Amino acid sequence: MRSPEERIAELGLRIPDAPEPVAQYLPARRIGELLFISGQGPVRGGVPAFVGRVGKELTIQEGYEAAFICAMNSLAVAKQYLGRLCAVKEVVHLRGFVNSADDFFDQPKVIDGASDLFVKVFGDAGRHARAALGTSSLPGNIPVEIELVIRVSAGRCEC
Amino acid sequence: MRSPEERIAELGLRIPDAPEPVAQYLPARRIGELLFISGQGPVRGGVPAFVGRVGKELTIQEGYEAAFICAMNSLAVAKQYLGRLCAVKEVVHLRGFVNSADDFFDQPKVIDGASDLFVKVFGDAGRHARAALGTSSLPGNIPVEIELVIRVSAGRCEC
Amino acid sequence: MRSPEERIAELGLRIPDAPEPVAQYLPARRIGELLFISGQGPVRGGVPAFVGRVGKELTIQEGYEAAFICAMNSLAVAKQYLGRLCAVKEVVHLRGFVNSADDFFDQPKVIDGASDLFVKVFGDAGRHARAALGTSSLPGNIPVEIELVIRVSAGRCEC
Repeated sequence: MRSPEERIAELGLRIPDAPEPVAQYLPARRIGELLFISGQGPVRGGVPAFVGRVGKELTIQEGYEAAFICAMNSLAVAKQYLGRLCAVKEVVHLRGFVNSADDFFDQPKVIDGASDLFVKVFGDAGRHARAALGTSSLPGNIPVEIELVIRVSAGRCEC
Repeated sequence: MRSPEERIAELGLRIPDAPEPVAQYLPARRIGELLFISGQGPVRGGVPAFVGRVGKELTIQEGYEAAFICAMNSLAVAKQYLGRLCAVKEVVHLRGFVNSADDFFDQPKVIDGASDLFVKVFGDAGRHARAALGTSSLPGNIPVEIELVIRVSAGRCEC
Repeated sequence: MRSPEERIAELGLRIPDAPEPVAQYLPARRIGELLFISGQGPVRGGVPAFVGRVGKELTIQEGYEAAFICAMNSLAVAKQYLGRLCAVKEVVHLRGFVNSADDFFDQPKVIDGASDLFVKVFGDAGRHARAALGTSSLPGNIPVEIELVIRVSAGRCEC
């Protein structure tokens, strides 16, 4: 059985370095089996890969790609915290906020960019409860911000 | 002592079928005693019962009714997951987003439509921590979306 | 070692009375080690200390002060629930919503007003995972609303 890292490589992807917090907070906080990961934006190398509102400056497809990058950054934070992603037992909950034009109502299609990644990497264990919301502004005018809660194993990885 | 299903019947209500997820996610995910239920809108039979912003196209009362339907759908998901609602030990947390006109600031009165239902059905066990927020857009232009976390029993129902 | 209450006094601050819920909900709900605290606004003596949108009617600094008051109110709720704040083991997660002008994108600087307080009062145990979001409206037109999850001790305080 392949590790999450191997599946990510098979998808032609690379886990980036975990983004530095932009203010006074931790990348993640663990309590028992739950790991709470701080809100992540579509940042690459410290710079937003997308800026603007979906349905105005950006298309659904661009929003989807932004959500995908947010999800990769969440995985990067998880890996930084856990050492190896085989310690991820389940993706529990994903909340996605889409910086939306007033008449944009397809937030679920945008947030699928994050959900699809977790299912590709973790299979059924990557499936999660979710909320997709629209909003009128996000930090740095990023188009998407996601919050993630995962269940992690107490013991050693076996992969 | 009556079961939640009996109290729902006494209120003249009926638990609907659980809405199908509209995208790539699960209706609910359980971890230990916590059941995280995905964001629910005021959907009936697959179609939104209300569309539009509260304070613009919709009144507070219509928003309240929409929140009530969101809450019924959350119970439907819980029942689908748990089999019987007597497995619900407590409603832990409710977060409600109201699709709001720019000058609408009565979100708590809208979200009471969800909170009131949980108290009617579960009594004190239905009382919960809560956040009521306004936003500028929600999926499908629904007026309300709610997220629910409940505590569920490990063992068998006794009702 | 000083208690959180002593540190608060050293900072020249005073924990207010816990705000009454404005609608049908509890100030907080505990499940196991987790205490979920309901959304708090910048209310003092039952009245909002700040009203309006950050980046429009209010400056970043005013937003920061509003977030600070929200955080104090969250501590007031925790103290009301727990009796003494030494029962707080860790601040786990903070979510902050900023009622924002359409072109305001500095939500993290606003929410630092809450985060900074927790670090001052609890030291490293006050550091937390976080999400900072913008939105178009909040209850009563308050500029900031925060949600808090803390880890609490099962047993007696030792301070």
